[in-house]
Amino acid sequence: MTAHYDVAAIGNAIVDVIAPAEEAFLVSENLTKGSMQLIDEARGVDLYGRMAAGMETSGGSAGNTIAGIASLGGRAAYLGKVADDQLGDVFAHDMRAIGVHFDTPALTGGPATARCLINVTPDGQRTMCTYLGASTELTAADVPVEIIERSAIVYLEGYLFDPSEARRAFAKAAALAHGAGQLIAITLSDAFVVERHRGELLGFIQDQADVVFANEAEVKALFETDDFDLAAAKLAAITRVSAITRGEQGSVILAGDRLHLIAADPVDKVVDTTGAGDQYAAGFLFGMARGLDFEICGRLGSMAAAEVISHYGPRPMVSLKDLAIARGLLK
Amino acid sequence: MTAHYDVAAIGNAIVDVIAPAEEAFLVSENLTKGSMQLIDEARGVDLYGRMAAGMETSGGSAGNTIAGIASLGGRAAYLGKVADDQLGDVFAHDMRAIGVHFDTPALTGGPATARCLINVTPDGQRTMCTYLGASTELTAADVPVEIIERSAIVYLEGYLFDPSEARRAFAKAAALAHGAGQLIAITLSDAFVVERHRGELLGFIQDQADVVFANEAEVKALFETDDFDLAAAKLAAITRVSAITRGEQGSVILAGDRLHLIAADPVDKVVDTTGAGDQYAAGFLFGMARGLDFEICGRLGSMAAAEVISHYGPRPMVSLKDLAIARGLLK
Repeated sequence: MTAHYDVAAIGNAIVDVIAPAEEAFLVSENLTKGSMQLIDEARGVDLYGRMAAGMETSGGSAGNTIAGIASLGGRAAYLGKVADDQLGDVFAHDMRAIGVHFDTPALTGGPATARCLINVTPDGQRTMCTYLGASTELTAADVPVEIIERSAIVYLEGYLFDPSEARRAFAKAAALAHGAGQLIAITLSDAFVVERHRGELLGFIQDQADVVFANEAEVKALFETDDFDLAAAKLAAITRVSAITRGEQGSVILAGDRLHLIAADPVDKVVDTTGAGDQYAAGFLFGMARGLDFEICGRLGSMAAAEVISHYGPRPMVSLKDLAIARGLLK
Repeated sequence: MTAHYDVAAIGNAIVDVIAPAEEAFLVSENLTKGSMQLIDEARGVDLYGRMAAGMETSGGSAGNTIAGIASLGGRAAYLGKVADDQLGDVFAHDMRAIGVHFDTPALTGGPATARCLINVTPDGQRTMCTYLGASTELTAADVPVEIIERSAIVYLEGYLFDPSEARRAFAKAAALAHGAGQLIAITLSDAFVVERHRGELLGFIQDQADVVFANEAEVKALFETDDFDLAAAKLAAITRVSAITRGEQGSVILAGDRLHLIAADPVDKVVDTTGAGDQYAAGFLFGMARGLDFEICGRLGSMAAAEVISHYGPRPMVSLKDLAIARGLLK
């Protein structure tokens, strides 16, 4: 079937609360720098009470990726669950305002819209504590056949392996996508997610995923090894395309027996690394959906990641399409 | 009475929704660039639906000023009305997180927390549409004697001349402050506010205000003249201290028969002028509360304004105290 959307993504629909923090704050709050941890509502209220003044922006890993794809000029759809509250309205507005199809019904009478409390240290690193709220109420019923079957790539967020209902939604999406001849991509999301769901993730990658995104820590966690090359080779053996990000060292793309090393784009000052991996995936997926070479896919990823870490907030603040045209990566 | 707070401010407690916009959008929405207009909830929903994806930050003119004073190391209190909702919680959090005393009870069962929809054009100018919501429910009962009497300067936002209950709150604050030997400062806020309430504003300035902040358009509107010098002289004749901002041309301070011309601080790139006047007032008021020369007060104002227009958002993103010390303006 020809694709109407370049990418449809399924993820935790989250509003970010971003605030500056000192290193000592992470220590006193017992937070592991650079990680994402799940918290309950009570801990959320408690932690927020001690955080600095901040800003609220729509976030969520796959939501950020979809925003990046829209910024590149891609046609995109998003599936995720917000609540029928003010922050849910903000999330929905921000999706639609960038031209993304989003009509997952908002949850009523349940928990509030998910929030991710992000403490950004002076080195630009972000440490995230997520209260999943309404986002975990996404079910298979929220995955519409007509969206999935008409998307060249369906992108799934590993974070959604936490709620079991969402895993069923993933299974439905994968079955529908493959039935229609489309591709399934997944990101491992976080090393702790990998620890919690290693078996299910390995099974899903082997049976369903055509494209896998991971960072170094995640791919090592997946294969329980400290040897990056070994982990990367093992991942490449069970999926068609792997794109592994390595921070300042750029990324490694493995596809069949081909290996591409992609440099990171230089950044004057790293302000906030929130969304770096998400934007890398945006550039890569957009390139793949448009049938570009993996080399160009990776460079689009590096470009998008560099843009997002140069400012606060997890989504692009300039047109990635214009940026890519200026670099000669897109026409 | 000795002051416990440098400044207490009374204002419309508002959450800003800031999004980039093209000039053509202002035209098609019939918005006057650089102005603030009041809108009702229905128009707010309508306009928001067509705005770009954005970010939410605590705002409100006097709220921004108070945030600037806290950033300068000042002791500050804020009085304003939010609703008992998510954005109200964000506003309250952001005040308390910067060490500002804020305990005006949130409104329950009424309109939502006030929102200001801010469209920022590529030239950095901001055009604001405000839905006042809960903020107009501030009453004289929300003005605590113990805060007002213990504040060196009580700062009032001209925007609050719109709701009549809030004018009663101002009258109470002015009476209490002067009774305790403290100063009353007011900002004219907006030329349209001046048009709507010229008589009341003139009366209040003459009878109550020790310090008046205005920009060029506002002071001209107040005296219904296009002659800036004449307008400035007329303002100086009816109040002790006038501080009039003129954008890139800096500011003019009139105090008794003394006149000070203060240069604007240079800015590499004007990103978003939201909060420029508010931060000028922050620097000036902090200086006055600490007994500094008007020259230094004005320079603190220029410095704070320059910081805030160099980024999105109406409140400082670095420590203004550190900045002022580095410039030799504070010790």
